[in-house]
Amino acid sequence: MTDHRDKALEYAHLHQGEFLGSLQDFVRIPSVSTDPDHQADMLRAANWLVDQFRLLGLDKVQVFPTNGHPIVYAESVKAGNAPTILIYGHYDVQPVDPVELWKTGPFNPVMNGENLYGRGASDMKGQVIASMKAIESILKTDQLPVNIKFLVEGEEEIGSPNLRSWIDAHQDLLACDLALNPDAGMIAVDVPTIIYALRGLAYFEIRVYGPDHDLHSGVFGGVVHNPAQVLCDLISGMHDSRGRITLPGFYDSVRELDAEERSELARLPVDDEYYRKQTGAPALWGEDGYSAVERIGSRPTLDVNGLLSGFTTKGSKTVIPAWAMAKISMRLVPDQDPKQVHKQLLRYMEEHAPKTVRWEVDQMSGGPASLTQRTSKGTQALTKAMQAVWGTDPVYKREGGSIPVVSDVQNSLHADSVLTGFGLPDDNIHSPNEKLHTPTWFKGIDALIHFFYNLQ
Amino acid sequence: MTDHRDKALEYAHLHQGEFLGSLQDFVRIPSVSTDPDHQADMLRAANWLVDQFRLLGLDKVQVFPTNGHPIVYAESVKAGNAPTILIYGHYDVQPVDPVELWKTGPFNPVMNGENLYGRGASDMKGQVIASMKAIESILKTDQLPVNIKFLVEGEEEIGSPNLRSWIDAHQDLLACDLALNPDAGMIAVDVPTIIYALRGLAYFEIRVYGPDHDLHSGVFGGVVHNPAQVLCDLISGMHDSRGRITLPGFYDSVRELDAEERSELARLPVDDEYYRKQTGAPALWGEDGYSAVERIGSRPTLDVNGLLSGFTTKGSKTVIPAWAMAKISMRLVPDQDPKQVHKQLLRYMEEHAPKTVRWEVDQMSGGPASLTQRTSKGTQALTKAMQAVWGTDPVYKREGGSIPVVSDVQNSLHADSVLTGFGLPDDNIHSPNEKLHTPTWFKGIDALIHFFYNLQ
Repeated sequence: MTDHRDKALEYAHLHQGEFLGSLQDFVRIPSVSTDPDHQADMLRAANWLVDQFRLLGLDKVQVFPTNGHPIVYAESVKAGNAPTILIYGHYDVQPVDPVELWKTGPFNPVMNGENLYGRGASDMKGQVIASMKAIESILKTDQLPVNIKFLVEGEEEIGSPNLRSWIDAHQDLLACDLALNPDAGMIAVDVPTIIYALRGLAYFEIRVYGPDHDLHSGVFGGVVHNPAQVLCDLISGMHDSRGRITLPGFYDSVRELDAEERSELARLPVDDEYYRKQTGAPALWGEDGYSAVERIGSRPTLDVNGLLSGFTTKGSKTVIPAWAMAKISMRLVPDQDPKQVHKQLLRYMEEHAPKTVRWEVDQMSGGPASLTQRTSKGTQALTKAMQAVWGTDPVYKREGGSIPVVSDVQNSLHADSVLTGFGLPDDNIHSPNEKLHTPTWFKGIDALIHFFYNLQ
Repeated sequence: MTDHRDKALEYAHLHQGEFLGSLQDFVRIPSVSTDPDHQADMLRAANWLVDQFRLLGLDKVQVFPTNGHPIVYAESVKAGNAPTILIYGHYDVQPVDPVELWKTGPFNPVMNGENLYGRGASDMKGQVIASMKAIESILKTDQLPVNIKFLVEGEEEIGSPNLRSWIDAHQDLLACDLALNPDAGMIAVDVPTIIYALRGLAYFEIRVYGPDHDLHSGVFGGVVHNPAQVLCDLISGMHDSRGRITLPGFYDSVRELDAEERSELARLPVDDEYYRKQTGAPALWGEDGYSAVERIGSRPTLDVNGLLSGFTTKGSKTVIPAWAMAKISMRLVPDQDPKQVHKQLLRYMEEHAPKTVRWEVDQMSGGPASLTQRTSKGTQALTKAMQAVWGTDPVYKREGGSIPVVSDVQNSLHADSVLTGFGLPDDNIHSPNEKLHTPTWFKGIDALIHFFYNLQ
């Protein structure tokens, strides 16, 4: 058995150049799920995956249409009573704006030193290819020690609006003992990381309407309530002076950290200065009474994701805008409910928006937070895999992001997810110049080979 | 003398049809200053004026090139020691978009009932022709009782970027005792109006910088101060709960309305409901303790003219933006100084911007307010002229906007401007279906004839 494992690892090491080539092919497809102009590219990306899965000899390879972008499925269920692992991935990527800040073309993947630059290289085309290439390395040298099922969706970056209903409709097909979700990342090079908690998300667009047309600020300045000013008042009031969120009832269902977990989090090699450097901010900021790592993993937050009103190009125009818009989202923790947060936001607006304007709130996407057991079989298998590859224990971390599929898999398929990934904090995911640290990525492929053997 | 005046008025009445024909010819030239496609039309309009001034027998008729559209000049300086009046006008017009909302061609002037429809009919080709035809009526029946100098620019609708430097360079040519600026309007039919105050302007762009790149709001939400949120805090703090502006010292040099002026303003036929209908806002808003008409004319205001940060197109992107921008401008009243206001804004930012962000303030444009004495010779001459034509006293009004040429003439030529005009609030200037109420316009020509005789 150890022999087979070594052969798979050897195959992986010999084919690193080809693996990288595959990833580059995948990154070249501009599969931006939020942009209707990339509709055809989304289909191209799905079909590219189909071809790869067929070349691997997987079964039931299929593109499932949804009301949005399609889901790609493939499986190998030939390992008898061995556990069945659902491998999750997404083939869609974030938009590339502001594109002028990219040093290389976002969809023209290029190596620079040890890094591969390109949109999706880290989040998460790189992680999908890592899983695929770990499976390939085993299939080319052995039989799979476990049953595997790939589920690769195309709507993660827009909140997976069609995933839960599709999972519900395909529970037999997807039946599994465990899910592997490599959409997380590592704390640092040489610090393999397993995520045991994720924050949820509630995303909204708020629009404030004042006069029924743009006004001349000379002729009318002083008689109407400027909707951009009203929007700023409303946003400003959403935090108090201690950095706490003021939506009515927002903290009522927030589960507090216990002393043991706080002391464990305090041992992570991520202090405040670490985050200051990662972000490049002049100074950190956040809710009083919690460390940076506690705030990211275990405390809810509210962020302005976008602001737009009036005249925003070069020069000056003396306009009182007719409307102002903000995109606002909350990161949620156990046991907050996105639907409740929506109600809390509406109540806040009803209580604070003045009668001098009209307003609308659209709910864009959302999902609850999740928390998994660190003693589970999957976590243990991954822990050993990481020890073998990095020669060190992994760290266990709460993640600040949201992965709706983790709660979907839990609720619909009753399977825990093992959350990991081989991206790094400075990968610029969701930003210009996204990159992947390839030496870490190659180690990740090795770790996944170990992981599958450890589970048999 | 009365005899001469009557003859001029008689000439004007006999030639109303021809005057209207001249205006229609002028409106037919699509002199849209902001549109490079109309470059040739701008020259056509300037040359059309030159022809008219030459036909009138004026002197020094000339087209002066500028870095933008040319300025047309003409004069008649034969009245010895009589005062010299600089008559201001502009021959450029607003764009016609959305053109599909016009019921007749914007540059195909047609009469419908008492109104002449066409772009520029009211703003301000009609007012230029009114001044020209008042002069013609006198010249054809008498000698001019005053010296006059016409200055007609082609860049008013784009902010007169080249006017001040041209005035500075031609101070001797333009030397005058008084300026007539008919680019304002009347409050209503049969309510002749004299503008005696204009607000000034101070325009800024504020940029707030947080993290050195856009961040994922899951990975980093909770540790950095969102620059869009900080900008909202700063903007929100610029007004207090009474609608007053909080910049340190902002009201120190604001000249208060006296009781007499307040009671005069209260008599203007523009109540709060008038402004609510004009703006289409759900309700009015403004500084406590002042009526709408007082706030527009005599109180300083601060408006957000534009807001931009992060992700603003369709859909959702979970980004913490690296920066946020606002365009903010203040309408100023006597005796505020735009330079002082700049310092007050900087002090506000220094006192209120947190150390978690960097910020920049750019000064874009500005000018002080202006206020003319209602007892001045020019205002008295126009008051008597309006009494003679309308049989009623004119109303005196403060205007909320800024007319840069008024402060240019004040600062460069040390001459007060008499501000009036014969357009009406429903003339749709800057909108589709611009029109001119011709009976009011003919009265305006009569009033200008009286005005020139009253000044001698």
